[in-house]
Parts: sequence; structure tokens; C-alpha cells
Amino acid sequence: MKDYSDYINYSRKIYDVYMSMSVLNWDMETHMPKNGNKFRAQQLSTLAKIAYDLETDNNYANLLEQLSADNSLDNDQKRNIYLSNKKFVKRKKYSGEFIQRQSNLISTAFKDWRIAKEKNDFNLFRQSLEEIVKLRKEETELLGYSNHPYDALLDKYEPNLTTKDVDLIFKDVKDHLVPFISKITESNHIDDSFFYQKFDKQKQWDFGIELLKQMGYDFDSGRQDISAHPFSSHFSPEDARVTTRIDENNLSDMIWSCIHEGGHALYEQGILCENYGTPLGNSISLGIHESQSRLWENHVGRSLPYWKNNYNRLQSFFPEKLKNIDYKIFYKACNNVKSSLIRTNADELTYHLHVLIRYEIEKGLIEGSIQVDELPSKWNSLYKKYLDIDVPSDSMGVLQDIHWSHGSFGYFPTYTIGSFYAAQFYNQASNEISNIESKIEKGDTEELLKWLREKIHKHGQRYDAKDLCKKITGEELNFKYFMNYAKNKYSKIYDIR
Amino acid sequence: MKDYSDYINYSRKIYDVYMSMSVLNWDMETHMPKNGNKFRAQQLSTLAKIAYDLETDNNYANLLEQLSADNSLDNDQKRNIYLSNKKFVKRKKYSGEFIQRQSNLISTAFKDWRIAKEKNDFNLFRQSLEEIVKLRKEETELLGYSNHPYDALLDKYEPNLTTKDVDLIFKDVKDHLVPFISKITESNHIDDSFFYQKFDKQKQWDFGIELLKQMGYDFDSGRQDISAHPFSSHFSPEDARVTTRIDENNLSDMIWSCIHEGGHALYEQGILCENYGTPLGNSISLGIHESQSRLWENHVGRSLPYWKNNYNRLQSFFPEKLKNIDYKIFYKACNNVKSSLIRTNADELTYHLHVLIRYEIEKGLIEGSIQVDELPSKWNSLYKKYLDIDVPSDSMGVLQDIHWSHGSFGYFPTYTIGSFYAAQFYNQASNEISNIESKIEKGDTEELLKWLREKIHKHGQRYDAKDLCKKITGEELNFKYFMNYAKNKYSKIYDIR
Repeated sequence: MKDYSDYINYSRKIYDVYMSMSVLNWDMETHMPKNGNKFRAQQLSTLAKIAYDLETDNNYANLLEQLSADNSLDNDQKRNIYLSNKKFVKRKKYSGEFIQRQSNLISTAFKDWRIAKEKNDFNLFRQSLEEIVKLRKEETELLGYSNHPYDALLDKYEPNLTTKDVDLIFKDVKDHLVPFISKITESNHIDDSFFYQKFDKQKQWDFGIELLKQMGYDFDSGRQDISAHPFSSHFSPEDARVTTRIDENNLSDMIWSCIHEGGHALYEQGILCENYGTPLGNSISLGIHESQSRLWENHVGRSLPYWKNNYNRLQSFFPEKLKNIDYKIFYKACNNVKSSLIRTNADELTYHLHVLIRYEIEKGLIEGSIQVDELPSKWNSLYKKYLDIDVPSDSMGVLQDIHWSHGSFGYFPTYTIGSFYAAQFYNQASNEISNIESKIEKGDTEELLKWLREKIHKHGQRYDAKDLCKKITGEELNFKYFMNYAKNKYSKIYDIR
Repeated sequence: MKDYSDYINYSRKIYDVYMSMSVLNWDMETHMPKNGNKFRAQQLSTLAKIAYDLETDNNYANLLEQLSADNSLDNDQKRNIYLSNKKFVKRKKYSGEFIQRQSNLISTAFKDWRIAKEKNDFNLFRQSLEEIVKLRKEETELLGYSNHPYDALLDKYEPNLTTKDVDLIFKDVKDHLVPFISKITESNHIDDSFFYQKFDKQKQWDFGIELLKQMGYDFDSGRQDISAHPFSSHFSPEDARVTTRIDENNLSDMIWSCIHEGGHALYEQGILCENYGTPLGNSISLGIHESQSRLWENHVGRSLPYWKNNYNRLQSFFPEKLKNIDYKIFYKACNNVKSSLIRTNADELTYHLHVLIRYEIEKGLIEGSIQVDELPSKWNSLYKKYLDIDVPSDSMGVLQDIHWSHGSFGYFPTYTIGSFYAAQFYNQASNEISNIESKIEKGDTEELLKWLREKIHKHGQRYDAKDLCKKITGEELNFKYFMNYAKNKYSKIYDIR
């Protein structure tokens, strides 16, 4: 007779393998010498297969089944068993053959995408992408769905999120955000050219470290490194790392990537160690994760009180470059709204139009209403439609994101969901924390972090995202909080009545 | 019916897990934030258990048995099967219970040792060490041996090396090296005080990188980092890394640790990728590994031609500090022979007396002629006997090395074996490579590296250490090559006739 502690040990074992993979991945993106790639890919694939075998082992299934019927468990224990069982059922739907095929396909697709992007030729990626779309369609059938096949893919990243939900969210975006963006872009132009001077890399780095410390990021349980694309990564709550990228000719790149990744890492550092290796020791969903990074990046890090506090310090790093800029000008410049080509460089409002475009394309590809060979023209016409911008090349257009080459479909919407959760959570935090703005103005975000820890981080997967949101804010995800935030902030910045 | 390719895949899978552990270990020693320890140890223990389960799987045993009888295999294939089978048999001798007990014990012992060393109190480590010695004695019975129980432990690090071999080697050391060292220490004193000025860390680092490049270390397949104790580590021949330590008040620490670890890493970079994950894709033994590091460190890196070539460059980094020192003085100073307390700081001659002391103690502990509680006094009297030096504290005496706290018994002798192999190999290389000294004088070690690659690196475990040595030099390990090298070199340095 096995018991709950056997489940804990086994679940931790699986998680240890995943965390080991994270270390290998982190190293690959930060420090690995260039020839290390081939064997690293093989090592990762071996660990993935080992994890898969552990996750789909029949003895584990029996243990989960037995514990599912064990009424002596407390609610947290039941929740762990419920979620592990759900995951088991899902993992079992994949055959080893599918996993292997997927792994090979992604490896090829990633190479093809890199070359296609470099050579600005979508055709070099087309065939791989067609195979990937086919694979994903197969996956939707294999996983099952009740309404739209895309639901099955959304659920992988944001459990219980449906195409219907996302359609409603983007309807709001189109109905309310798009006209508001038009108002902004028709109004005054903001000059943010001072961001694009030459800023010493070491000084940028030092300032970024200060911002991370100020947020409450614990460098005894994390570290920052440089990578081609900023990311956060964790191996336990006591080792949750961030990376950043420093462009000598663009100050903004480093600042908000630090704050953004710091937000992700604070979530991981706030997970309870005692729950390591179980669903309660894991973050809920990509959307909730993104809510943490966006809350810090935008609601805190692009706010007036934040820069009222931090701008002097930034200026002391770059007295010459910033001598004619005061914190109010700086604040406006870092909230410059304008249509742009590249999603990762977009401001916090037009950003969602980039996501909308990807969502419409992914949904179309999966339901079969869009074909892969139409993608460049489809992409370009959607950029014209939503952002009123001409795409000069596939490299800066349909080939800009890594996601599809990694086989990720259903991922993009979590960026938008996350931002809207952020607005709703931040609004609630502002209601519950007295004088939050004047605290931020003093560099004091301790209470905010404590609130996030208490309301979100410490629970792990105790609640589904939707339930968590209701529990914290009294209602499900509601676009109005983001829209109110946007209107309130940008009406002032752009002097819109 | 399974075939050789199934063996290859399975063997690589096991190796992938070990290489993943190496990545986790490397990260732990170089970059991991301080709180990361607890879960990292757990992750490593999980991977170790997974590797053990794979290595001792019955299906694998059957496959090896079947392939052992397969006459269609070529010699390399037969060698791989032979060695994998040997390893399987050895691994099978351990119970899961033993492995678990060992892991717990080492974890405790390591903590106790650190505290004992810090507090300079051997008693805080005594109990753990007693348990470890007991465990190792148990292991010798479990592994089996024909003459001396210590043989079973030596064999773990240097296959086929016996206590009898090591006794003979240290008899030579005592008969020939000890009197020669006496002659040296009775002769002129060398002033090496200029090493202990303040040398800028970044400049030291830059110089070390140059030395590594000059040796032929490939930074596209490796990198250097800082760690508390220098080490080399590899995840494949295409990712073989080194670390160094930089003491701002001691120039020598960095220089020869770079060259030493570089020598280890060149061995790993010279292993053939096609043999990855099989015995032929693995180094032979710790002794042969150490022969590579010592050959570069001492025979190349402490030679007169080496510094005739490199000294100007070093001087250009530190013109003020080294202005009154010419390359001949520098050469003498870096070959200063004198009794010292700490093994890792010892010169290349007295070094072997440090090893001898550890060997005598280990052998005594395992055969039962020495008890753990006698260790401090035993240690101190041996340091008096062989090095004529008084040990002021246990921290600088019996507690100085990490090895015993890691449970490593039988490891120390490989340092000496390796140095003697190095002398014998280097002597042979000098015979086969024309004008090797004048090549080194020009910074050209390409031919030497090619020779090492051809004679040693590329073979992996194709030959046992003893056979390899015979194949390369025409005879088994012979102390006279080291002694000749020492006499020849130090008679000149110390003007001894």
C-alpha cells in the first residue's frame, strides 16, 4: 500500500528532471560555447524522454488513482492529486512516436526559421511550418476539444482558456482599445530620441541591478546574466534567475526587460519551497505569469511615481546624455505610443494588436481557413489593417517571432491575457494598499510584493487562473480594468479629453 | 533481437544523464546563487539515481551478454562491450541501499568537514570520517580484491592499479626523490617574493586566456570561469570547460592553474565525438587525466623555453611589478622547491610527499592499522618525517583537503601516478618530436598537442592505462623518467653537481 508521501517523492523526481533541463537550457542561452549545441540538444532530448517515461508510468497511474479515492487527504493534497492526475491523462494521450516526431520536427523547423529570417525568405521556412501546423492539428484531435480545435492548444498554456474567451477579449480590444489608440496617434507626437544615444553598457547593467534589488528580487536566490533574448528561468524558488540584453544605443531595452523579467522571477521566488515538485509548488499558467511581469513592467515601471523616485539615480549614471531631460519628459517618452513593426519593441497599448494579428493567423491555420503559403500576404495585410503600417520584409514581418519555429501555437494570447490580468490585479492592489503611489514614489514596493505573494505567489496552482482572479478581485477577467488604466494614463500623457 | 546500435543508444542515454549532472555541478561551482544549494543537491541525487537505475537494468544486462558473444563485432565494438559489461558488473555489486546511505553520509560529512575546518577542530569531523571509513571498508568487501583491500578503492579511479604498484612507486620516491629534495633544500634559497605583490585581477585573467589559446584550447568548444577551486569539466568534446581562481596577491596561483586545467580540457576536447557516450569516448583513468594536466603545467609551463617565449608578454601586463625580474629569474622562482604545509601550493617535487602521506594514512585506515582518532597526530608526525615541517593547526593539516569528506579514498595516488606518467610521456614526445624545446620557445606546441591527440586523446578507453603506456613508450610506468627530469632540471636551477 502506497501513500501520499510516495506520490510526493515521485512527483518531485519528475520535477527534478524538468528543473535539470531548465539548468541545461539556461546554460545554453547564457554561457554555452558555440560548438556545444549538438550534444546539448541530445542531452535535453534524453532528459525529456526520461521525464515523459516517468510521467506516464503505470505504477504512477495506479498511485494517482488510489490517492484520488483517498478521503483522508486534506484539500491541498487533493488538489495536488487532482492536477497530477489531469496532467497524467493529458500526457498519456501522446504517443512516444508523436513526441519523437515533434522533437525532430521542431529541431528542423528552428534551423529553417533561422536561415529564412537571416535570408529574408519565408519560402525557406514554409515547408517546416506546414509540417508543424499539421502536427498541431493532429494534436488538437488527440487532446480533444468541445468547441474549437484551437481550444486544445490554448489549454496547454492557459488551462481552461477557450477560443470563445479570447474572441471576446479581442472584441473588446477592437471595440475600445483600437479607437483609443487612433485618438492617441492622431494627437501630439512624443520625442523619445534621447533613448537612442550611446549609453555605456556597464552603467546600464549597474542601474538594472539596482532596479531589481529595489523590487525585492533576492540575489541570494537568483542572478542576472546576459542573453540574446531576455528570459527568466527557475530551478527552485531559491534559484530563480533572469537575463537581460543591453543595447548600447538604446537605453530602454535594458530597463524594462530587467523589470519585466524581474516580475517573472519574483513570482518564482514567492512559490513555497515546501511545495517544490508538486502542482502547488508551480505557477498557474503563462497568463498569470505574464500578469506578474507586466504588472511590474507597466503598472509600476512605467508609472510617474516610479520615475519620480528613480530618475535622479538614472541621471547620475548618465549626466551628460540626460542633462536636458527631466523625469516628466522621461516618463512621457517611455510611454510613447506608436505603431511599429516588431512586437517585442511595441508600447503597452499597440502591443495587443501585434498579439491579435498572431491570434487571428493561428486560429485560421488551425481551423484551416488560412494556408501557410498565404502567411506573408496575410501578415502584411493585417499589419496594414490594425497598425496601419507597411511591412518592408518577411524578416521584420512574419518571420520575426521564434514561437512557431518552436512549435508553439496557442502561446501568444497569454501575453494579452496576462497584461489584462495585470491591470485587474493592480487595480485591486491599489484598492487594498493605502497610498500605493506615494509608496512607489519613495521606492517602497514592499507592501505590493507582499500583497502579490499573499494573493498569488504562495498558492502555486491551488486555484485555477479564473478562480484565482475571482477570489482576488471578485470577478472574472474583465477588460475594463486595462481600458480604464490605459484611458486614465494616456489621456493625461497625450492630453486627450 | 537487439543489436549493437541499441547498445550505443542506451549507453549514450546513460552518458547524457551523467553529462547533465556535470552541467548542474559546473553551475553549482561557478554561478549558482548561494541559496540554490538545497534543491540542486536533490536534483543531482535524482539524476544519479536515474543513471544508476539505467546502468543496472536487467534488459541492459541481457543486451550486453548477447553482444559479448557476438563475433561479428569489430575490435573497438568488442572493447566497448567488454568495458560496459565490466562496469555493469561493478555497479551491480552496490545495493540501492548502499548508494543511498553513501549519499546521505557524504552530505553530512561534507558539512561537518567544512565546519571542522572553519573552526579548526578535527573532532567535529571525526565521527563522520569514521562512518566513511567504515563504509569504504564495507565497499572493499563488496567489490572484492585479491591482495589488499585498498586495491578495490584504487581500482575505482585507476583501473588495475594495485597497492603493490603504489608501494613500489613510493619506495622509489623515498629512495631517490626524498634524498634529492634534501640536497635541494640544503642548497641555495630562491627568492620568489615578487609573486606576492598586488597583480590586477583583470590583467591576470587576460594573460591566462592568452596562455590557454596558445596551448590550443578551443574557446568555441569551451570557456573559462572563476570558481573557489580551479577544475575542469566537460559535457562533450565540444563543450569542455575550465575554471580558475585569481588571487590578487599571488600571481602564480592563476598562471599554473590555467595551464593545468587547460591540460585536462585539451584531453577532453581531443576525445572523438563519434565515440560520445561509450567507453571509447571517455578518458581512461584519473592518472592518465592527471598526466595531461601535469605535462602541460610542469614539463611545458614551468620550462625555461616556455618562459623565454611568454615572459615578455607577462611583463607587458605588469611592467612595474616585474621590472627588475628577467625571464631566468622568473623561471627559477616558479620552480622554487621547499617544504610547505598545503598540498595544492606545493612545488612539483615535494608535492609527492604530500601524496605519500595521504596514501600511507588511507592504506592504514582501510587495513585497520590506523584509527580515525589518531589522524591529527599521525598526520603531524608524517609531515615532520617527510617534509620536516611542524603543522600548526588541523585546518592547515589533516583537514586541508576536501577528498575524505567527499568519501574519496584511493584518489590521491592518481596525482602522483599522473605526474610520473607525464614525465614518461613527455620524454617520449621529446624523442619523437624534433627540437621540441625550440618549438616551445617559439610558442609552438601544435605538434606536441597533435602527438598527445594521436597517442592518447583520440583512443578514449581503447587501451588500459598500463597498456597505453607500453604502447607509447615501450615500457610500463617507470619512475626513472620523472627522476631524470627532476635531476636534470633542478640540478641546473640549484646548481647541484
